[in-house]
Amino acid sequence: MTLTAILEDIADEFRDVSERGVVANYIPPLACVDPTKFGMAVVEADGQIHTVGDADEAFSIQSISKIFGLTLALDAIGDALWTRVRQEPSGSAFNSIVQLESEYGIPRNPFINAGALVVSDVLVSHYGVQEAQQKILDLVRPLTRDAKNIVIDRNVALQEKETGFRNAALVNYMRTYNNIENPIEKTLELYFHQCALTMSCHQLAEVGAYLMTGSWNPITGRQVTSTLHARTIMALMMMCGHYDASGSFAIRVGLPGKSGVGGGILAIAPGVASVAVWSPGLNEYGNSLLGTRALERLVQRTGWSVFNAYHMK
Amino acid sequence: MTLTAILEDIADEFRDVSERGVVANYIPPLACVDPTKFGMAVVEADGQIHTVGDADEAFSIQSISKIFGLTLALDAIGDALWTRVRQEPSGSAFNSIVQLESEYGIPRNPFINAGALVVSDVLVSHYGVQEAQQKILDLVRPLTRDAKNIVIDRNVALQEKETGFRNAALVNYMRTYNNIENPIEKTLELYFHQCALTMSCHQLAEVGAYLMTGSWNPITGRQVTSTLHARTIMALMMMCGHYDASGSFAIRVGLPGKSGVGGGILAIAPGVASVAVWSPGLNEYGNSLLGTRALERLVQRTGWSVFNAYHMK
Amino acid sequence: MTLTAILEDIADEFRDVSERGVVANYIPPLACVDPTKFGMAVVEADGQIHTVGDADEAFSIQSISKIFGLTLALDAIGDALWTRVRQEPSGSAFNSIVQLESEYGIPRNPFINAGALVVSDVLVSHYGVQEAQQKILDLVRPLTRDAKNIVIDRNVALQEKETGFRNAALVNYMRTYNNIENPIEKTLELYFHQCALTMSCHQLAEVGAYLMTGSWNPITGRQVTSTLHARTIMALMMMCGHYDASGSFAIRVGLPGKSGVGGGILAIAPGVASVAVWSPGLNEYGNSLLGTRALERLVQRTGWSVFNAYHMK
Amino acid sequence: MTLTAILEDIADEFRDVSERGVVANYIPPLACVDPTKFGMAVVEADGQIHTVGDADEAFSIQSISKIFGLTLALDAIGDALWTRVRQEPSGSAFNSIVQLESEYGIPRNPFINAGALVVSDVLVSHYGVQEAQQKILDLVRPLTRDAKNIVIDRNVALQEKETGFRNAALVNYMRTYNNIENPIEKTLELYFHQCALTMSCHQLAEVGAYLMTGSWNPITGRQVTSTLHARTIMALMMMCGHYDASGSFAIRVGLPGKSGVGGGILAIAPGVASVAVWSPGLNEYGNSLLGTRALERLVQRTGWSVFNAYHMK
Repeated sequence: MTLTAILEDIADEFRDVSERGVVANYIPPLACVDPTKFGMAVVEADGQIHTVGDADEAFSIQSISKIFGLTLALDAIGDALWTRVRQEPSGSAFNSIVQLESEYGIPRNPFINAGALVVSDVLVSHYGVQEAQQKILDLVRPLTRDAKNIVIDRNVALQEKETGFRNAALVNYMRTYNNIENPIEKTLELYFHQCALTMSCHQLAEVGAYLMTGSWNPITGRQVTSTLHARTIMALMMMCGHYDASGSFAIRVGLPGKSGVGGGILAIAPGVASVAVWSPGLNEYGNSLLGTRALERLVQRTGWSVFNAYHMK
Repeated sequence: MTLTAILEDIADEFRDVSERGVVANYIPPLACVDPTKFGMAVVEADGQIHTVGDADEAFSIQSISKIFGLTLALDAIGDALWTRVRQEPSGSAFNSIVQLESEYGIPRNPFINAGALVVSDVLVSHYGVQEAQQKILDLVRPLTRDAKNIVIDRNVALQEKETGFRNAALVNYMRTYNNIENPIEKTLELYFHQCALTMSCHQLAEVGAYLMTGSWNPITGRQVTSTLHARTIMALMMMCGHYDASGSFAIRVGLPGKSGVGGGILAIAPGVASVAVWSPGLNEYGNSLLGTRALERLVQRTGWSVFNAYHMK
Repeated sequence: MTLTAILEDIADEFRDVSERGVVANYIPPLACVDPTKFGMAVVEADGQIHTVGDADEAFSIQSISKIFGLTLALDAIGDALWTRVRQEPSGSAFNSIVQLESEYGIPRNPFINAGALVVSDVLVSHYGVQEAQQKILDLVRPLTRDAKNIVIDRNVALQEKETGFRNAALVNYMRTYNNIENPIEKTLELYFHQCALTMSCHQLAEVGAYLMTGSWNPITGRQVTSTLHARTIMALMMMCGHYDASGSFAIRVGLPGKSGVGGGILAIAPGVASVAVWSPGLNEYGNSLLGTRALERLVQRTGWSVFNAYHMK
Repeated sequence: MTLTAILEDIADEFRDVSERGVVANYIPPLACVDPTKFGMAVVEADGQIHTVGDADEAFSIQSISKIFGLTLALDAIGDALWTRVRQEPSGSAFNSIVQLESEYGIPRNPFINAGALVVSDVLVSHYGVQEAQQKILDLVRPLTRDAKNIVIDRNVALQEKETGFRNAALVNYMRTYNNIENPIEKTLELYFHQCALTMSCHQLAEVGAYLMTGSWNPITGRQVTSTLHARTIMALMMMCGHYDASGSFAIRVGLPGKSGVGGGILAIAPGVASVAVWSPGLNEYGNSLLGTRALERLVQRTGWSVFNAYHMK
């Protein structure tokens, strides 16, 4: 069965499911999204793309953008990053402040909010707020066949800021440990703008494909980062990409993945495929409910889990 | 270069290293082990084995045995296990009791001490203390070409018990949440005996090879568990196999692995290889210092990281 | 109005109250107590006693006994006790184990379970299990006009032991930090027997009267402890005597007090009165619901709060 | 011996002590204070005042000002305050954020930073930032014979703000639980200005004397608050006035007291005396080292501990 047929099967299976989770509602632009949306896109190692459903509709990728911020920060300062953020799962909710108190303001990993804020702070120090936003767009846009609608949604960023007291608490708190270098509001500004990045599943699967290959984009041939950084990012996606449900995702899906509160997930089958899925309803851990189930089904059908002995065939 | 040559290179590299970590010293049988010991063994998918150094010397595999206890418990009660222990990294030290208080006596995963004690309790309920110990031996012995010296070291078990107040605290504590079914001392007895399992790197790589294939032993052809269970166990090894250094291990080595305080590590390259390494000195996280570095080197040389795009070649 | 009349007023007020809290039900001997029981006794500075209701009925004083264990331990080893247990409120539930992990096995104060277990361990070291029990009886019995029914209820102690997994967890856990000197089961045995001490409000008010005077029993003239120890014990009762509702008790009642899960409370108005109250139903914090309210009313009527400027009159 | 003679004895005793603790150094205006300063003032129930040493030199009273903020807030909204801040000791450092996460943004008491920030927020809601500052001055100034130098030090407030990231974190964090009603910066502004209140020991003992009497100032006869509020404030001072050393202070001194990082302490002997002491060096818990010892000595000499049976004499 072709990959396209598998994707269509999956979309069919979930079309009439009523239990779709709860759409994020802390800001209107997210709360208003139609919960029945469902899209999926797969880029294979040869650059071929397969899509289904609402794969061409742009959505707010939110925390998935932390992958791109981390890519830029590693390219900017390399291993020096690891003096300011660790590489371990947190065992806590994505926005917990507790661990910072006992661990001297050093976040557990770059994918929980505190860690992503440190990454933003690194980029503000290196590039400034405005240029860093441009850097993110300059990183992702050339990696797609069509970058139309890949934008930073200023309205989303603004509304994130207006309700972002917890992130403000995290930055202020890390500042007391000298783990924030820039004025609080600048670091937050970049963070909120990065998270407001908007694109479609189609585009996201293409943009993320440099992780699948280990460094370069299979559509354009463009080198994006080093193999070492790509591998590090995928390991962290595996360990911490789904907050406090990362272990369950590793068992059920078995691929490095990163979810966002907008309902998107990017998952990578190293050497094989870059997969993006979008369904706005979230499960209790804040990850796309149907998105996770769709990836689980895809891996069952394709055998793409990294824990699969498929190389023996 | 052949695998044997690579192993010899690695053994050569570490032979005269002076920084070898600290040998566990909480019980004499561990404290007395010669810190200069170093052994490594690799079983390939076709059952071929390569060894170097002290690969045939028996050592106390300690927490690596949690893999085998988990295998038996999953085969005994299946998914019912997950009502009593979760599947997430803990973000805490291996013997922490804190998380149990906020999470109602349900341990984070089967590889931290609390979780492994629940697994032992499951086996005591299912088999009784004596038969469960026999079950463990019956599981591992037939998976090796030569099972000589694969024993449960009663002296180690006894001394573990005499100093095992923290594990006794964990069991008592979980009992208050009704997450321990048997008398405290029985569950502890099985746990201490399981951890006292003794074998060599050579044997450990052979025993663990059923994870590499996804369910069966490549030497004997014997079916050991289901593919689903093998994959679940490997996912948990990846997420939680090295305590609070699991993320770092995922980045540096990129294989599911499980360490023991005796200085051993079992790592699996799915479909490719089962690797055992032994060097008694531990790093600050309680994992073998040179063992971890040896696996890092092996993966650099072979490209076996699951995050590697090696399938593209 | 005379003190006896005030007590009768209070008993009248609470006689038909339907909201009486929940009787402790973790062991049958406590669960079976009639929730409508209510007794109160006040010993004045001159030794005069006033009682009302079920003031002569014996009940299980439970944690109130920690006052007497602490008195004996301070007399046995003095300030050396404070190297093993601190003097601060815990900010946690009475049976929390969390703080022990971050504070190296040193409990916050002698009135939370962990701290009282350390006190028991001190007494076992000093006297042995059997003699320590006798010491407790020898301390309290001579302080009353009639010591009949002041016993250690062996059945209560036994049943506490059978369900006492959390206390067993605490002792084992502190043992890992070398803050328990004796075999786990011995320290627990004394603890459970001390908590099984049985007496009436009448007797409890008389026994506790040495705190009111600052060291000696006003009925017998017998010297019980030093003024320094009496003052230390009262300060700790004020700070930690009502678990996680000690602050609320200080505001509402304003006297050093100690509650027990059997529904008793001993409160001391320094230089003025020793007060015992008993009503088996507990509030959400594990303190006697009506007992607390009765003390609040008594203090409103007498002006006995230590924060009252009554000395100015 | 007269009270003045006792104060002089105490001042003599500490004059040449070399171990004086460490002066707070997070902002220059505090860091620059001469560590050899020592002053003490006692106002008796009849309004008579006794002073020694640098009792007339103004210093930054810092957290002692939380008493006056709390007095105003209770007078403004009464018991409604207790829905936003609790009445229990925290068992944590004064600036801990951990408890807020598990307790839904409700601080433990009004004397830890988080709780005092809620009190400030109440005052901003009720009065506005500017008027609330004036209210504080209007509360304290008329309570002294000479209010000269009782000011809010704008320079201190400004520098607090510039380094106050942890307090900003606390306010932002509580805001996520809707426990802050005003713009972050306004609540912080009042908090920093309140803490910048400056006065002498002489003045502080006079200002605080309304607690001793239970509501009115013994010098002017002026009613300040209700007896209920005065008693509540003193109970909270006893339970939480010295951060994580409140228990030790209760044992050693036995009076409700409140310390400030500027090295001052206000302690109240209900019905007897209002005592202010100032020595800038702090102990490991952030309380004045010699100030605590001076109060301990004073209580030894006068018998003023509330746990003392002095009423019997």
